[in-house]
Amino acid sequence: MCFMEHVNVFHSLGKQGVRMTDLQAEVRPGAYYDSVVLMQLQKGLAALPGVVDAGVVMATDANKELLAAMGLLPEGIQAKADDLLIVVQGKNKKATQAALAQVNELLQQRRGGAVQTFRPKSLHTAVTQLPVGQLPSFQITLISVPGRYAANVAEDALNLGQHVFLYSDNVPLADEVRLKQIARAKGLLLMGPDCGTAVINGIGLGFANRVRRGRIGIVAASGTGLQAVSTEIHNLGGGISQAIGVGGRDLKEEVGGITTWQALDLLQRDAETAVIVLVSKPPADRVAATLLRAAQSGDKPVIVNFIGYAPPGRRLGNLFFTSGLVDAAEHAVRLSGEVVALREERRPLGGYLRGLFSGGTLAYEMLLGLQAVLTPLYSNIPIRPHQQLPDLMQSRAHTILDLGEDAFTQGRLHPMMDNDLRLRRLRQETADPDVDMIVLDVVLGEGAHPDPAAELAPAIAEAARADKRVVAIVVGTELDPQDLNSQIERLAAAGAHIFPNVSEALDYVYNRLPPPTRDFPPVSLAAFTGEGLTAVNVGLESFYESVIGQGGGAGNAQAVQVDWRPPAGGNEKLMAILAKMKQGNGQ
Amino acid sequence: MCFMEHVNVFHSLGKQGVRMTDLQAEVRPGAYYDSVVLMQLQKGLAALPGVVDAGVVMATDANKELLAAMGLLPEGIQAKADDLLIVVQGKNKKATQAALAQVNELLQQRRGGAVQTFRPKSLHTAVTQLPVGQLPSFQITLISVPGRYAANVAEDALNLGQHVFLYSDNVPLADEVRLKQIARAKGLLLMGPDCGTAVINGIGLGFANRVRRGRIGIVAASGTGLQAVSTEIHNLGGGISQAIGVGGRDLKEEVGGITTWQALDLLQRDAETAVIVLVSKPPADRVAATLLRAAQSGDKPVIVNFIGYAPPGRRLGNLFFTSGLVDAAEHAVRLSGEVVALREERRPLGGYLRGLFSGGTLAYEMLLGLQAVLTPLYSNIPIRPHQQLPDLMQSRAHTILDLGEDAFTQGRLHPMMDNDLRLRRLRQETADPDVDMIVLDVVLGEGAHPDPAAELAPAIAEAARADKRVVAIVVGTELDPQDLNSQIERLAAAGAHIFPNVSEALDYVYNRLPPPTRDFPPVSLAAFTGEGLTAVNVGLESFYESVIGQGGGAGNAQAVQVDWRPPAGGNEKLMAILAKMKQGNGQ
Repeated sequence: MCFMEHVNVFHSLGKQGVRMTDLQAEVRPGAYYDSVVLMQLQKGLAALPGVVDAGVVMATDANKELLAAMGLLPEGIQAKADDLLIVVQGKNKKATQAALAQVNELLQQRRGGAVQTFRPKSLHTAVTQLPVGQLPSFQITLISVPGRYAANVAEDALNLGQHVFLYSDNVPLADEVRLKQIARAKGLLLMGPDCGTAVINGIGLGFANRVRRGRIGIVAASGTGLQAVSTEIHNLGGGISQAIGVGGRDLKEEVGGITTWQALDLLQRDAETAVIVLVSKPPADRVAATLLRAAQSGDKPVIVNFIGYAPPGRRLGNLFFTSGLVDAAEHAVRLSGEVVALREERRPLGGYLRGLFSGGTLAYEMLLGLQAVLTPLYSNIPIRPHQQLPDLMQSRAHTILDLGEDAFTQGRLHPMMDNDLRLRRLRQETADPDVDMIVLDVVLGEGAHPDPAAELAPAIAEAARADKRVVAIVVGTELDPQDLNSQIERLAAAGAHIFPNVSEALDYVYNRLPPPTRDFPPVSLAAFTGEGLTAVNVGLESFYESVIGQGGGAGNAQAVQVDWRPPAGGNEKLMAILAKMKQGNGQ
Repeated sequence: MCFMEHVNVFHSLGKQGVRMTDLQAEVRPGAYYDSVVLMQLQKGLAALPGVVDAGVVMATDANKELLAAMGLLPEGIQAKADDLLIVVQGKNKKATQAALAQVNELLQQRRGGAVQTFRPKSLHTAVTQLPVGQLPSFQITLISVPGRYAANVAEDALNLGQHVFLYSDNVPLADEVRLKQIARAKGLLLMGPDCGTAVINGIGLGFANRVRRGRIGIVAASGTGLQAVSTEIHNLGGGISQAIGVGGRDLKEEVGGITTWQALDLLQRDAETAVIVLVSKPPADRVAATLLRAAQSGDKPVIVNFIGYAPPGRRLGNLFFTSGLVDAAEHAVRLSGEVVALREERRPLGGYLRGLFSGGTLAYEMLLGLQAVLTPLYSNIPIRPHQQLPDLMQSRAHTILDLGEDAFTQGRLHPMMDNDLRLRRLRQETADPDVDMIVLDVVLGEGAHPDPAAELAPAIAEAARADKRVVAIVVGTELDPQDLNSQIERLAAAGAHIFPNVSEALDYVYNRLPPPTRDFPPVSLAAFTGEGLTAVNVGLESFYESVIGQGGGAGNAQAVQVDWRPPAGGNEKLMAILAKMKQGNGQ
């Protein structure tokens, strides 16, 4: 998502092969225009008779280079970075001059659409003069001013008690962290920066498809990700309760998923939301673990689509891991039509989990499933280097061991044939007071031990007596020589919880994850009434018009456009002085 | 999967708290015993009256350390690595001595079960004396001798025209590559090394669950992966045609998926196989690309479960990417019951694909989907570092561009509002003779351009006239202000292929992937009759007994146990001399 940094290269598609033309430029020092106006100026100029191409940019070095690459930079032009540069390429000198003479007129042309009469000059005026009581109670400030101004505007809005939709990009990461901490403490949502899309109380903000209202809530780090999922849900017959954008960096380590967690928490409490969809690029590991545990701690199904993230399973606890946005949408629609009661009575994991596997792939699948939610996690077959267990003879924190791995089987029968080593280790884990849960696999079939339950059951019973929960994954068929049912019965009688595959065992664990401790006040649900909103817009006018347009005759979407200008007219030096003065006064 | 390196630590579960005991050891220089026999010796000794614990190991340093850790290594023991070390811990001296006196008798005890009368001393004799014509025609040699001998035995078997099931581990990677190249050239399968499981013509080899016969073929790098999937398929009511293990390293860069590709190719030709399941840890990128393209080139659905691999989508062409083994099994069973006709008429991709996206997430999802199959692939939002496009103004090979990314939008309206830059780039790609396909997204909705089709359609028509295939992903709903249907109609009329999401666009591309060139002779289908097999077993006797046992009364599973001994009685020096002599003679 981009905001034009003051101005831009706008140029029409030049006709090929025209060489002998006249190129002239006009420089206007430091004026601020809405970038849509500038795009229209460029289009207007290019459409004039006798004009071949045109460019309208702020005269930064990068933009001058771009103009030059397009053959639109007259030689010897003197223009500084905060000057507006208007270039016209005409068929001849007369046409060029005629075009440049119309710049003022073109700049003054207003687009059609609603234009408010009340145009406050500051955010403060806009917010404080809102006729509260006559307007929808959900108040939000939309900000699309250039990035370097955006953090200040956002902070002002938060201090005025407004939720913020921050479209601007190029906001420094440190500012994002600071703003989100402020918002979190106040129980407000700061969506963004670089937030392209949201749908709040049925009103689309930024870029947003018009979608049916419904019972699916969305939390998304990306704009088109949110658009694609909400569109697909609509097209499949489903509908959206709230769709909350969080910005592309929210799930980074530095930000820690502040807004995502607030939004998840909000949607979990929202009675209108039955199913939650969470869309993002892969988050930082620690952020993922916190958010997945927070998502899992609620009662609603959460459909997780971390694009490009190896899913730890298909359905684990309340979490559904999907492969792609379409898959996520399909799941959401299917689940939102169902009465879902996934949760069972359970005691949260109160200590470490230790997995003692004979099957390498089963151990790997378990590790993959757990690494998303349990930390620290160690193994002798680490997926990531930091998971390497230093001493194989001694488990540490949560540990998954593949006892069929070379280090354990040098000169020893495979644990699928010989239970000795595993029985010794099982007793060792049983003796560890920090262990809560022990996971074993029991792989039946040709070639394997003729009666593993006979050897495992006494040791499992011992563990159960020591108040360990033992999970046994029994892989086998009723045709196998060991008698599947008898194996299961004896393992269960010894106290093991029996599952037929890793996926269901993981599900058992996910349903027992201890939730993370929420250390922030909840965002108030009161204004998420589904009855529209009131937006204060600072920046691109098209966003203001879009909100007004969505209100239709019903008047449930109100907006105020702030007649915002950059401080000190955009003069960088003056701005720095003003900022220092403000800081001096404020402290 | 492990083979015991000659011998082992076998020790019973010592009773706790017994301190005052008698520990004695016996050393037997360089004798070779089947490791199951040694496990039984250890169990036999430990079960004798007055015995507390016992250990039977080859006296390697590692094994002596293990014994010491268990308190089972008498001080001052002199034993070399190829000596057998027998340790008994008795309640008193008398019990210990009585136990050690029974070692010879325990070693001579045979286990129950079938014992053949014909016990050839060499693999060559075993294979050449098989009464061909009376036996099932699928001939395979099972090898479970220690790793350092295994490559030689496998090479002998291949030279005798046998398929090979190579259970042994610790086979050097270079030997694996060499053996697989030999096998491939001969049209034979070398399953392994470290191959735990296969089911051929209904007979389980190594560790294998007994499963229903059916129409699902499995190719798996891992033993328990194959067991878990085949078990789940059986338990869901499905059945297995053939299940081929390839060994854990087959999909590594060095091996290049030789056996996997042979197996895929075989199952694609096998009339009894309707659906193929491919299970592995994530393969090397280049190997994945070749195998996925090979899998995609057939007419059968291939269910891919690369554990821990970020799936490029859910269903793409013939390929189904699943999240976990259960998900894979469910898909396989569902599809094997359907008449699947997925393929459509199509012209394979004959040049480069260029994606020009306005939506970052859509671009990312496309990149993720393509990176599994198209190479080289470049982008300005690379998922992997080597995908970084060096010059953003110039596409290279296959390229996916996010035109909404900062580098393109510094001081410019977002491409969702302003099509100018994308139109210029579209014309640039159209002019490139190496380009076959151009992919665009068209994101409708609030805030976006009011009529993107008006600007895009002429440029798309231009591309179509230049024989480029244009794919347009149109994200929108019928409620959106742009009129979804009109947008689609005009884009389609201009020649674009329209899809509602990235997933379906990827599916279109996958269906047009050029298949890789198969550069090896196909494995003959003739012996894959479903009518059992004839196995020559070298190594663990339990595998021989398992095959015989599966023959039941029907006699469709025949096996011959080779009375194999290591060359030179396992004497390393002598072996090296013999190997040199053999080499000298052979060349």
